[in-house]
This record gives sequence, structure tokens and C-alpha cells, in this order.
Amino acid sequence: MPGIKKRNMEFKAQIIADFLGGTVEGDANVTVTSVSKIEEGKPGTLAFLSNPKYNKYLYETDASVVLVNQDLELEGEVKATLIRVPDAYKGFASLLELYQQAKGNKTGIENPSFVDPTAALGNDIYLGAFAYIGKNVRIGNHVKIYPHVYVGDNSIIGDDSILFSGAKIYEDTRIGAACIIHSGAVIGADGFGFAPNEDGTYQKIPQVGNVILEDLVEIGANTTVDCATMGSTIIRKGTKIDNLVQIAHNVEVGENTVMAALTGIAGSVKIGSNCRFGGHVGVAGHITVGDHVNLGAMTGVTKNIQSNKTVLLAPAMDIAQAAKVTIVYRNLPQLREQVIELEKQVAKINKKLEE
Amino acid sequence: MPGIKKRNMEFKAQIIADFLGGTVEGDANVTVTSVSKIEEGKPGTLAFLSNPKYNKYLYETDASVVLVNQDLELEGEVKATLIRVPDAYKGFASLLELYQQAKGNKTGIENPSFVDPTAALGNDIYLGAFAYIGKNVRIGNHVKIYPHVYVGDNSIIGDDSILFSGAKIYEDTRIGAACIIHSGAVIGADGFGFAPNEDGTYQKIPQVGNVILEDLVEIGANTTVDCATMGSTIIRKGTKIDNLVQIAHNVEVGENTVMAALTGIAGSVKIGSNCRFGGHVGVAGHITVGDHVNLGAMTGVTKNIQSNKTVLLAPAMDIAQAAKVTIVYRNLPQLREQVIELEKQVAKINKKLEE
Amino acid sequence: MPGIKKRNMEFKAQIIADFLGGTVEGDANVTVTSVSKIEEGKPGTLAFLSNPKYNKYLYETDASVVLVNQDLELEGEVKATLIRVPDAYKGFASLLELYQQAKGNKTGIENPSFVDPTAALGNDIYLGAFAYIGKNVRIGNHVKIYPHVYVGDNSIIGDDSILFSGAKIYEDTRIGAACIIHSGAVIGADGFGFAPNEDGTYQKIPQVGNVILEDLVEIGANTTVDCATMGSTIIRKGTKIDNLVQIAHNVEVGENTVMAALTGIAGSVKIGSNCRFGGHVGVAGHITVGDHVNLGAMTGVTKNIQSNKTVLLAPAMDIAQAAKVTIVYRNLPQLREQVIELEKQVAKINKKLEE
Repeated sequence: MPGIKKRNMEFKAQIIADFLGGTVEGDANVTVTSVSKIEEGKPGTLAFLSNPKYNKYLYETDASVVLVNQDLELEGEVKATLIRVPDAYKGFASLLELYQQAKGNKTGIENPSFVDPTAALGNDIYLGAFAYIGKNVRIGNHVKIYPHVYVGDNSIIGDDSILFSGAKIYEDTRIGAACIIHSGAVIGADGFGFAPNEDGTYQKIPQVGNVILEDLVEIGANTTVDCATMGSTIIRKGTKIDNLVQIAHNVEVGENTVMAALTGIAGSVKIGSNCRFGGHVGVAGHITVGDHVNLGAMTGVTKNIQSNKTVLLAPAMDIAQAAKVTIVYRNLPQLREQVIELEKQVAKINKKLEE
Repeated sequence: MPGIKKRNMEFKAQIIADFLGGTVEGDANVTVTSVSKIEEGKPGTLAFLSNPKYNKYLYETDASVVLVNQDLELEGEVKATLIRVPDAYKGFASLLELYQQAKGNKTGIENPSFVDPTAALGNDIYLGAFAYIGKNVRIGNHVKIYPHVYVGDNSIIGDDSILFSGAKIYEDTRIGAACIIHSGAVIGADGFGFAPNEDGTYQKIPQVGNVILEDLVEIGANTTVDCATMGSTIIRKGTKIDNLVQIAHNVEVGENTVMAALTGIAGSVKIGSNCRFGGHVGVAGHITVGDHVNLGAMTGVTKNIQSNKTVLLAPAMDIAQAAKVTIVYRNLPQLREQVIELEKQVAKINKKLEE
Repeated sequence: MPGIKKRNMEFKAQIIADFLGGTVEGDANVTVTSVSKIEEGKPGTLAFLSNPKYNKYLYETDASVVLVNQDLELEGEVKATLIRVPDAYKGFASLLELYQQAKGNKTGIENPSFVDPTAALGNDIYLGAFAYIGKNVRIGNHVKIYPHVYVGDNSIIGDDSILFSGAKIYEDTRIGAACIIHSGAVIGADGFGFAPNEDGTYQKIPQVGNVILEDLVEIGANTTVDCATMGSTIIRKGTKIDNLVQIAHNVEVGENTVMAALTGIAGSVKIGSNCRFGGHVGVAGHITVGDHVNLGAMTGVTKNIQSNKTVLLAPAMDIAQAAKVTIVYRNLPQLREQVIELEKQVAKINKKLEE
């Protein structure tokens, strides 16, 4: 079983360099048909070197072509053809994108699918078999809707967005342009709102709001974004959310924020722009988190956090304090020993003084 | 993009007051067509005021009608028409419910759908396209089954229940009346049971039990409730479970318990009635949790908990102790400084005494 | 509503004993039609006794037949027929397996389903209605594909594997023989990889790798296994993963490792064989975990772990240290009191010495 998927791409080093605006060192006519990691590089593949930790592999790799940073200084002989570019990592990403686009680009409408007669479909879309498009739905141009996707009544999907197999979009959702919704993600399910009755039972609070995802938002597999009780749960432009994340009702997440898997954001939380959350983070209801906030994995947030903070632990604290707390915590048994020893010595001193 | 979804509802203040058994203060003929939050209130909308923290907005809001508690004392001039009711929050919920029912109520059978000839369907149901109903399934009256729902063989769905798009119900599941199962929830997948062999491999223990959800249970999006190894995993009447929660095999959850997102309950745990669990809670296998137990977010439970306790932290402890522990924990570096200072002083004293 | 599902199985004790290579004590002609737990045993059912904690139920149970370990010494009178076998737990599991196989074994192709003309289907498969099989997919023999399963282009499913309703397999995935993928699991969604741009936005790194599940792997409901950025995310033979687990891009998990629910493994982590992870575990990116490592529930791993370690807490530490840390942690307020008392006493001593 090949670890790398085969694609029919064959390019000369010179053509790649021209595409990326880079310069070739070595055989400009060598061709590559696939990509590999530099430490596993095979002949006929293209690799890249960006992280200096991997520099040593440059002199060993069997990859035919390696993208490197413009300013890399060689410390030995290199077998591969080098292409020097301003940023090897981003150059590689651009190539991968090209590579992915070059593969079969799904279009057309497969059968059976279900499109309500009142729905409006854009040009050049892909609609997979068993996809469901409800009443008054508007689907933009170049949208890809994979099999088993559900788009509830009155929802709008912007141009160039991709909904992978089994994504579920409840009614009245607004999804912007160039969004990616992965399989099993659920957008717009009811917020978790119940009013307690005197007999201990709960009355459901109808959730009549919706979800708005702005442009360029990516939602991971099996992530859930609940609709607002009233108004909208909003995820702003360019924000990327990993798998199995819970975004509760009426949450607002700013632009270009990234959240790792298994994080849970409770109701009515407001999160700023350009934040980075690790995995398993929890944020309690009605909290405000500023811009450019970093939360370590498993952080538990119960108080507002100002912009530009890096915060760890549960309960959450500033990274400087958290680092000190963690050191003492790890060595608590020793601290206790010190206290017991002190107690003994003080008892001895007291005895001596009483004599 | 409007944050509030438009619905065609238009009611006079007097009619709303009559419906709720309340009294009008102000223009009884003013009409509303939608709802809003009091702090964002717009003309033509109805808002409510329940939490005293929001009292100030009553004097500023542009909402046309505001539901307030009977005993609210005004501290200024109010532009809006007031409707006084015994409980403004619940009154508002009742209105939302009416509002939601008033919108298009799905009924009928869409095509293609799959209904095994041995299945029995109730009256007045909605069966969405691509829904699958297995052998010997019994579906009650007024049930709504959205597209892509799977109901495995021999399962029973009680009257008035709603299964949203993509809910998966394994065979032999019993779902009571008026339950709501959100998209992507999986009810009845195999419990996680394996017997280790001597060579380190595992033998699967077949999971032959089922899941029983009693009446009025709500299961959040992408939540999983595993079937019992033998017997039944049971969630009792009126219990509400949020998104992305794991309920393992043979768990029993009592009545009217609420669990927030990303919580995991391990196998054979018994949980009482009227409990409230925060997010990211973990309960270890075979634990018993009493009635009216509150667990804070991220609590890790490894021992039985008696009724009427509020418990926090991992490892879990009573709230009074937890509060004290947390204060010391946050200030551990300072505690360590105190110990080091004591050591210095004791050393000095010892030296002095030796002189 | 019966807690135990009814199956048409009726066997004499003697036949069960013969099947398991055991010996009968009591009426060898008694018949059973179902199974039960020993503590809830009903006439006409078969139970088992393996855990000595349950020994007392042997003398009370109404089960007609009880499987017990060969060497069990009776301490009273037993009403049930006993079958003595080398390992009562495993014997029971074998019977359950038989029991499960005896029930309706799904085969055949239901309509409508979607099979691309370029796909190759094995013999004796089940393909449920609304299942989707993409281009160039190869499905082995005796595979069961339940309704609403999606198998993307170029994927391979090995013999005897079962994909439950709504499992989503992205393109290019390799699934071995005798694997079980539960409902809602997503295999092969994009890894969470983005390169930050200078303006704070993110550029998506195309994820061109795939996922390889070796033979006998079980993936729980709504679990997500992301594809590799390049190369493969690999889960090796016999590994069992519970519900709602996140396995990120380029992770490798060894053989016969078990992971409980809500665990998250970040990108490029390598995990050894025969490990056992509790629920809510988090492992940070690029970490290596050895073989035979046990991680307690909610452990947070940020450093490599050597083989044969048992590790707890966040930050993770060896079980011996963790146990001591936990005791001091629980009693932090008392430790603080001790320090305050010491400070008072030292102050008193200093005062006395100054006099």
C-alpha cells in the first residue's frame, strides 16, 4: 500500500521554479511526478526544506528536487536539484494546491439527489448523489456539495464553498464564500437552552436564531456550531476550526482565529480575532476573550481574557504564573516534605527554648 | 444578512397578553412581527426582561413590547409597551414555541426514501428524502424524520419525536415520545468492550444490548449513546444531553438531568435525577452519582458522589474544599517562597542557638 | 419495554458446554433462550460469573444456566445449572458472538444505492440503500456497508469489514480486513494545517496524504481520523478506538492499542503498541509514546513517554509521583495552614531570641 497517493503530475524543475519565481541549482531538466517528505524522499519526487531541524536530510535525501529557502547556506554536497524560493514552506503549499486542483475536479449533478423546486443552484456546481437541498435554498457558483449533505430550508451557500459528505446544515444558515465544511459537521442545531420548572422538569426554549459563517471559514469533521437562541451565532472571516469542536448558541468568533480539536465554547461567549486555541480548551458561558489570545491545550477559562495574553491551565492563568505554578505542582510532595522537616525543627527549637 | 430570521408573525400586544394571562401597560394596539434581545431591541419586535442585570436596558430599548415580571418596579420612563406576567422568561419561551410551531410544519413522505415493508408508520409523520426505516420498525404518530436518518431494524420511535437529518439509530433501540435527536447523534453503536488475549490482541465482546431513551429526552448533535453489552443503556424521562457527549454501554441516567457538551460517561455508570453537569466532565466506569448533583466543567469523577453535592476539579472534590484548593494552587509559587524563607530563618535560628 | 432484546435462540446446557469444551453441573437438559447479567438473572437465560466481586449473586440468581471458571469453589447451594469452562468471560463472549451471528445476517444490495461503474465489489456483500461508492473503489468479500455510508474515490475496503450507517471514508483511504467503522466516523478528512500570512490570515496547506487502517481495527462512532498532509496517517493491526476521538494528520498508532472516548492525538504523534489510554486524554503534536504505555483519563502529554510507563495528570507524570502529588493537592489548604502556623511560631521564636 503506497503511503503517498499517486497523481498524474510530471513537471520539470525549471517549470516549477518559473511558477514559484525561484532559481534552479543543479539539473533543471529533472522531472518529478509526486511529492514526499525530505526525510523519506524518493527519486522522482519533490520535497521541501523549511525547518532547520531537518537540514541534515538535505544531504541524504533521494528526492529529485528540493525546495529550499533563498538564503540557505549549504554545508555539504547535495544530490538533488535545488529550487531556491523566498519561503520554501509556502512555495510547497502553493504547489500542493496546484497539484490538488489538477486532480479530477468534481462537477455535475449525480442521481438520485433531492433539490426542492424553490431552490436556486449556481453555475458549475457539483451535487453528489443523495444530497438534499431544501426550500428556498440558494447555492452559489462553483460550490461542491458531496453525497449525503443536507442543506435545510432558506439556507444560503456562498460561491466556491465545499460541503463534504454528510455535512448537515440546518435551516436559515448563512455560509459565505470559499468556506469548507467537513464531513459530519453540524451547523445550526438547537442551542442547549431549557428553563427549569418547579417540579424539576425542563421546558425547552425554542431556538429561533441561526448561524452565520463568513467567507473563508473552515469547519472540521464532526464539529457542531449551534444556532442562536435569538439572533445569530457568528464565525467571522478566515477562522479555522478543527474536528469535534463545540460552538454553542450565540457565540461570536472573530476573524482568523484557529481552534484545535475537542474544544468547547459555551453559550454567548465572544472571542476576538487572530486567537489560537489548543485542544480540549473549555470556555465558560458569557466570557469575553480579546484579540491575539493564545490558550494552551486543556485550558479552562472562567474569566474574561484581555487581548495579547497567553494563558494556560484550569483555572486559566497567565503563562508566566502558570509556568511557576506547574513547577511547584510537579514537586508538591517535596514541598510537603520541606514543611514537615520545618515543623520538626521548629518543635525542636521550641523544646530547646523551653528548657 | 439579517441576524434574526424573518417569520410572518404579527400580533397586537393585547393578544399576546391575553395568551399569556398578563396585563398590558402602555399601547395595547402596538404590533410586533419578530423577537429581539432587549439590549438590541428594534421597533416592531418583542423582547423580555427577566435577569435584573439587564434592567437598565428597559429604559433604552427600541423594542415595541417587553415582557416583564409581574412585580417589576419601574425606575424611569419606558417607551415600550409592557406586558406583566408571572414569569417573563417562561412567558417568552411559550411565545417562541408558538412562533416556531407557526412556521412551516413539515409533513408527508419525500422521495426517494426507504421503508422496509415490515415497518409500521404512524399518522401524520414527516419522512424526509433518503431516510431509511429498517425491518419491523414502529414509528409513532406525528413523528418527524428528517433526510438521511437511519432507523435500524426493530427500533421503536414514540409519538411526536423528531429525528434531525443524519441521526443514526442502531437496531433494537427504544425511543420514547416527544424526544428530539439532533443531527449526527448515534444511538446504539457497540459498547467499547474487548477481552485481552494472552498475545496482546483483543477479542471483541459482542454487544447484544440496546438503548432506551424514555419520553422527552433530547440528545445533542453528534452525541453518542452506546448500546449495553447486555441489557440496556437507559436515559430516563426529561433528561437533556448537549452536543458531542459520550454515554458508554450500560450507563443509566436518571430523570431531568442535563449534561453539557464534550462530557464523557464511562461504562456502567449510574447517574441520578436532576443532576447538572458542566462541559468536558469525565466520569470513570462503574461509578454511582446521586440525585441533584452538580459537577463543574472539566470535573474528573473517580469515586461515588452522594446526592445533593456540588463537586469540582479533577480529582473531584466538594465545592468548599475545591474553592480553597484552587486559591492555594493559583498561589503555589508564593507558598513555595514562604517555605524557602522559613527554611532560611530556621537555619539562622539554629545557627544562633548553636553559638 | 424489555431491556433485553429478544432473539430466537434456544439451546440446552449440554450443547453449550460441548460448544465451549466445558463440563455441566446440574440439569444438562435445561434450555436458555437469552442472556442476562448474573445479578439480574431471569429463568430461561444464561449468565456468567467471572469477577469474584459478583460471587454472591451465584447463590441468588434466577438464571437457568451460569458459566463459571473451572476452578471456582462453591460456598453454598446453587439453583442454576453450572457450566465450568477455563475462562467464563471469554466463553461468554464466544457465545455472544455466535448469538449475534445467528441473527439476521444482512446481505444483498438495497436500492437506491450509488456505485460508480469503475468500482469493484466483492462477493457476498451487503450494500444498504443510499450508500455511495466512488470511482475506482475496491470493496472486498463479505463486506457490510450500511445505509448512508460514503466511500470516496480510489478507496479500498478489505474483506469482512463492516461500515455502519453514515460512516464517511474520504478518497484514497485504505481499510484492511475485518475492520469495524461505526456510524458517523470520518476517515480521511483534511488535516488541520494552515500557514500564517503576514496580514494574520491563513493559507490552507493542501492535505494530499491519506489514512491507512490495518486489519482488525475498530473505530468508534463519530471518531475522526484525519488524512496525512503527505504520506499516511496509520492505525496498525488490532487497535481499537472508542467514540468521539480525534486522530490528527500523520499520526501513527501501533498494534493492539486501545483509546477511550474524547481523546485527542495531535499531528505527527507516534504511539506504540499495546497502549491503553483513558478518556479525555490529550497528546501534543510530534510526541512519541512507547509501547505498553498506560495513560489515565484526562492525562495531558507534552513530552515523550518511554515504553512500559503508567502516566497520569496534566502535565503528565509517572504514576508514583502523580499519586503523591494528588494527595498533597487535595490537601493544599491544610499545607498552607501548616506554613502559616510555622511562620507564626518562627516569628515568636525570633522575638524571644531578640529579647
